[in-house]
Amino acid sequence: MKNILGREIPDSVTLPNRQIRLFSGVQVRHEDVVKKSVKTRVADPTEGKVIHDIKKAIEKSGLKDGMTISFHHHLRNGDYVMNLIMAEIAEMGIKDLSIAASSIFPIQAPLVKHMESGTVTGVYAAYMSGPVAKAISEGKLKNPAVMHTHGGRSRAIECGDLKIDVAFIGAPTCDPMGNINGTEGKSACGSLGYANSDALYADRVIAVTDNLVVYPACPIEITQEYVDYVLVVDSIGDPKGIVSGTTQITKDPVGLKIAKNTIRVIEASGLLKEGMSFQTGAGGTSLAVASYLKDIMKEKRITGSFMSGGITGYLVDMLDEGLFKCIMDVQCFDLSAIDSLKRNKNHQIMSASMYGNPHNKGALVNVLDIVILGATEIDLNFNVNVTTDSNGYIMGGSGGHSDTAAGAKLSIVVSQLFKGRLPAVVDEVTTVSTPGETVDVLVTERGIAINPLRQDLIEKMKKHNVPVMTIKELQDVAEKMIGKPEKIQRSDKIVSVVEYRDGTIIDVVYQVKDQ
Amino acid sequence: MKNILGREIPDSVTLPNRQIRLFSGVQVRHEDVVKKSVKTRVADPTEGKVIHDIKKAIEKSGLKDGMTISFHHHLRNGDYVMNLIMAEIAEMGIKDLSIAASSIFPIQAPLVKHMESGTVTGVYAAYMSGPVAKAISEGKLKNPAVMHTHGGRSRAIECGDLKIDVAFIGAPTCDPMGNINGTEGKSACGSLGYANSDALYADRVIAVTDNLVVYPACPIEITQEYVDYVLVVDSIGDPKGIVSGTTQITKDPVGLKIAKNTIRVIEASGLLKEGMSFQTGAGGTSLAVASYLKDIMKEKRITGSFMSGGITGYLVDMLDEGLFKCIMDVQCFDLSAIDSLKRNKNHQIMSASMYGNPHNKGALVNVLDIVILGATEIDLNFNVNVTTDSNGYIMGGSGGHSDTAAGAKLSIVVSQLFKGRLPAVVDEVTTVSTPGETVDVLVTERGIAINPLRQDLIEKMKKHNVPVMTIKELQDVAEKMIGKPEKIQRSDKIVSVVEYRDGTIIDVVYQVKDQ
Repeated sequence: MKNILGREIPDSVTLPNRQIRLFSGVQVRHEDVVKKSVKTRVADPTEGKVIHDIKKAIEKSGLKDGMTISFHHHLRNGDYVMNLIMAEIAEMGIKDLSIAASSIFPIQAPLVKHMESGTVTGVYAAYMSGPVAKAISEGKLKNPAVMHTHGGRSRAIECGDLKIDVAFIGAPTCDPMGNINGTEGKSACGSLGYANSDALYADRVIAVTDNLVVYPACPIEITQEYVDYVLVVDSIGDPKGIVSGTTQITKDPVGLKIAKNTIRVIEASGLLKEGMSFQTGAGGTSLAVASYLKDIMKEKRITGSFMSGGITGYLVDMLDEGLFKCIMDVQCFDLSAIDSLKRNKNHQIMSASMYGNPHNKGALVNVLDIVILGATEIDLNFNVNVTTDSNGYIMGGSGGHSDTAAGAKLSIVVSQLFKGRLPAVVDEVTTVSTPGETVDVLVTERGIAINPLRQDLIEKMKKHNVPVMTIKELQDVAEKMIGKPEKIQRSDKIVSVVEYRDGTIIDVVYQVKDQ
Repeated sequence: MKNILGREIPDSVTLPNRQIRLFSGVQVRHEDVVKKSVKTRVADPTEGKVIHDIKKAIEKSGLKDGMTISFHHHLRNGDYVMNLIMAEIAEMGIKDLSIAASSIFPIQAPLVKHMESGTVTGVYAAYMSGPVAKAISEGKLKNPAVMHTHGGRSRAIECGDLKIDVAFIGAPTCDPMGNINGTEGKSACGSLGYANSDALYADRVIAVTDNLVVYPACPIEITQEYVDYVLVVDSIGDPKGIVSGTTQITKDPVGLKIAKNTIRVIEASGLLKEGMSFQTGAGGTSLAVASYLKDIMKEKRITGSFMSGGITGYLVDMLDEGLFKCIMDVQCFDLSAIDSLKRNKNHQIMSASMYGNPHNKGALVNVLDIVILGATEIDLNFNVNVTTDSNGYIMGGSGGHSDTAAGAKLSIVVSQLFKGRLPAVVDEVTTVSTPGETVDVLVTERGIAINPLRQDLIEKMKKHNVPVMTIKELQDVAEKMIGKPEKIQRSDKIVSVVEYRDGTIIDVVYQVKDQ
């Protein structure tokens, strides 16, 4: 069957515990949701929670063949937690596990051998890059990996679509009762926003820490009543991989041109005004947009309400300069963000559910004004691929892309028109990550295209003399210079099912053809 | 049938939605608990949450005859929220409601007429004083009021024993998406710890605010994904009733004598040491204990881990002086506590579940060292009454009494041996609030009694030359001076069912006899 975007979702696609529903466009109204009821262990007050042996912690968790275990990705490419736990699980001979990681990074390469041995047969993630993504693309995982959005992951956990048996939560600082603090300790990572749903809804929760402190571990992010055991290990991560020292604005003239064009769109949109809210990523071009925005806000004496998402030092500086009232932080990208979180009460942690869950009483993205997004490909209907590369390999995933695009009043995709011989605008994206109806603008170094669904925006651009092209015209410009790309070959085996944030299937990813 | 304390619980006692279980002693081990699954409204992103009309908010909530609505008591005797909402509900003609208030104060007197009119037929509370308590004692509520503990209330809400249809949460500061901040605004009350379970488990949640601010209302205590609507009213409370300006140490020599005796017990117990934790109330004698403790900690250069419970300026001073590492705050009693919460990251908010729920993965009370408690009566088995007065009228309730007594390593009841002609030690307490097995010591101005269950403590007192009497001897001393009190007369009608923190029935309260 084809979904509303024309993507073929074969009848053979199945998901554990639930029926397949096809993406049928963004649904504004939705019936009430019944959240999963949680079975919780009642602690014996005479027994401690602290465990110093990984095997013992796994045994205590009751982990068995076929279960689902979860990890958060706040330790990013410095995370030791998943590797430590999975090595022990493999050693214990437990099989057929699903890994529900909020994201997967290159450091988690050992997962490939656990997939090959049958220890791991399923994967859920909102983003994956590196050897695990490659291995899944090559068909090494038994069941199709489920890729969702950050908000969609919370949705799935809360309603039981994704049932987590045991959550292992990397805890930069923890006390003996399991109170977790992310901002302190040698492996500090700041916000633990993506781990919140896991803590609230998993049957068993194990905090994994390398910094056990005297009770209570103030300021507490995840509280003791959600944590069953505290596993103490030597190190939960490599600080160099957890956070980058600094985030840098691009110096590339192409990136700067795109940023300048983006600012023109923002100005013409009418959203650049008192109380505005803004989200951007940590890429060089995105930060250049932030930089130009900062100049204009200063010049026009505009104070925004909030910046949100994954937070960098650049946004912290804007908060410190009083350009925005608050930062809403689901993830810290650098040391400056962690420092700000520690010292500034207007730098507020938020959970992934508060950030982007489409099935709660209202997520932050619903009131976001402007978001700057990336794309590896975008089609003529503005459908965006951030999941696979031009060879069909998984190299990313939606993360918060679809969540913010759906919520924001103005969602702008920034991209070079082509990189090498690869164009941004294509007839058909390899994978749909984010539906075009939620993407308002494509900004490239050679022109700006507005989604025809946003006639209001097209009018505004005209009024402010911002030159606009159709996306087809942008495609033609690129094809004149680099030609039409060849269609990639793929096999028929599905290696991943891509969920939209509401849990409907927006696309599938096929195994790559032997190169 | 009689429960294990010999209290008669008539077979006629029933509770909505569940079976009656009798108190059978403190249970350390307990099977896993299945938490209530929550039905949650999915917000339409195009619709706002803000409502300016009380009637409209009640209509939006779907409130119907027979439902249960909840309120928190952080606005204490300055709370306007319950009266505002109930006046409108009465006007609308909705009947047969149960009020689940974390506590009820004299300001809520209008509830009496709603009980008389049949608008309200049930009440749940952890504490009640004033006209509502009097009216219930006199049989004016149709169904027996259920009195629980602060931790027990969370337990009941989480497992579904107490199902809340609509929670009305007084919000000193709130934004249009429903993020609630308790520390700012003209009606600031600080921690909203008792409202947390209501927000998480009620079918509908309405924030009621007199200070609607620009999004986001950082620092946020209760987040938007739990709030359906934001009702804006002129005033949610009278600041003079919400918090007291200052808290005062007693100057009464009897109170000071009791405090000195208490400190001797604490010193002899061996718990006065590095890392100790401590909880006390806001009464003059309790604060005198804190004052003496402070002097000793300074002298001996001891740093404690945390102070907990309802927080006063006196405890804030101890935090500021570095005598304790943290304050764990479920409720602010005064302006100084609110100020500290705003400025000190080691002053940490906690929910009632984290504080005292016996059926979670471990509450704070489980690791509390010392608690100082009050009593209106105590019997020879150390069972304590803090629920009814000597005439059988309800004038209080457990609050956190039973929770902390059960959890703390050393629970000390401080009381004058008699007040007027009313003795503290009696053959049989009018109502059992807290079971004697969890009460370790009674300290009076005329002597100290240790619970015989704590032989270890009796040995320690001997070793440190702290004179100890039996509780019978203390009773005899009082009776020699004021005689034996007359037994009060009561009717046969049950006006309240007293739940222990685990949900078992520890006692019932009978209607008072016409005076």
